[in-house]
Amino acid sequence: MSRTIEFFFDFGSPTTYLAWTQLPRIAAECGATIEWRPMLLGGVFKATGNASPVTVPAKGRWMAGDIARWAERYGVPFAFNPHFPINTLTLMRGAVGVQLRWPQDLARYVEAVFRAMWVEPRNLGEPEVLAQTLASAGFDAGFTDIVADPEVKAALIANTEEAVRRGVFGAPTMFVGDEMFFGQDRLEFVREALGASAETD
Amino acid sequence: MSRTIEFFFDFGSPTTYLAWTQLPRIAAECGATIEWRPMLLGGVFKATGNASPVTVPAKGRWMAGDIARWAERYGVPFAFNPHFPINTLTLMRGAVGVQLRWPQDLARYVEAVFRAMWVEPRNLGEPEVLAQTLASAGFDAGFTDIVADPEVKAALIANTEEAVRRGVFGAPTMFVGDEMFFGQDRLEFVREALGASAETD
Repeated sequence: MSRTIEFFFDFGSPTTYLAWTQLPRIAAECGATIEWRPMLLGGVFKATGNASPVTVPAKGRWMAGDIARWAERYGVPFAFNPHFPINTLTLMRGAVGVQLRWPQDLARYVEAVFRAMWVEPRNLGEPEVLAQTLASAGFDAGFTDIVADPEVKAALIANTEEAVRRGVFGAPTMFVGDEMFFGQDRLEFVREALGASAETD
Repeated sequence: MSRTIEFFFDFGSPTTYLAWTQLPRIAAECGATIEWRPMLLGGVFKATGNASPVTVPAKGRWMAGDIARWAERYGVPFAFNPHFPINTLTLMRGAVGVQLRWPQDLARYVEAVFRAMWVEPRNLGEPEVLAQTLASAGFDAGFTDIVADPEVKAALIANTEEAVRRGVFGAPTMFVGDEMFFGQDRLEFVREALGASAETD
């Protein structure tokens, strides 16, 4: 019965970027809406005992080629960020803050950050580069205030804790109702879950 | 130019079972042959620093459902083996030994073991259960000799070392020429690689 895709994401994950390039189209085709759930992947790793795949060097090498293959299949630009991994705390607080304070700007914020991270790609761990990136997307002084807002900080922690409680161990993770899908390579299953729920409506 | 799929496998991996249910059909459709490469997944994990996904409990829980979804999509039987993980040393030596001594029986051996492990499922870590399983597939006394054969033991080690040298970090892993594909969820890419190599022949 759910026509919503909950999208638990962290900008630091290249496969999450890939999922983001496809999800809006899938949602549109299925008549579903995306519920954006910013979380801190580092917090998820810490809570679950999981780790980035690149901590196994052979896996990291294979993944670079695998992501390139998927980007080609999807027909989307991708450049592995040479500054990876980048601390995304401010960026994820920003996502929560924009969602709370300027919800109409969230899509633009998410696009600006994903592009800067995985297309251009920039070192968003550098405060100056980050400020410049956000300013050129129209996010200026007010942004500094929202990422420092205790309510915003607490909301990001709450999202991350909820994710872990519901079984999330990595990113991207999508939920359709209670059904959980991990990985950009499971989008066809997300589509099927939406189709199935449409049929039972 | 390669019309061969090298299939690095270990019977202990449920996703490798899933790949095995699909590969012969894909090979037939692409006019390719499968080169069976038994390896010891435990050795690969040790050499690469990788570990079974189930070492992260949340990941293991999700994988159980994920494998069930793929089995349903493929239309193949699957039952998670309650004795998992099972030490596969004898089984993998058996694969190498059958391949060396009775190559015409390899397909039957592989099928008997995968079915016993992931369909019935039996505790193949128990010597008695193992012996019974093999006997009912027609592998009897001679089997004990081949798994004790130093040449067989060395060949399994050599396969495992070669896998690691070529970038393998888990199972199943397929090679088409130099291109490596990890996971039963990458079979479409294997098919594309075979198609592409057919076109350039």
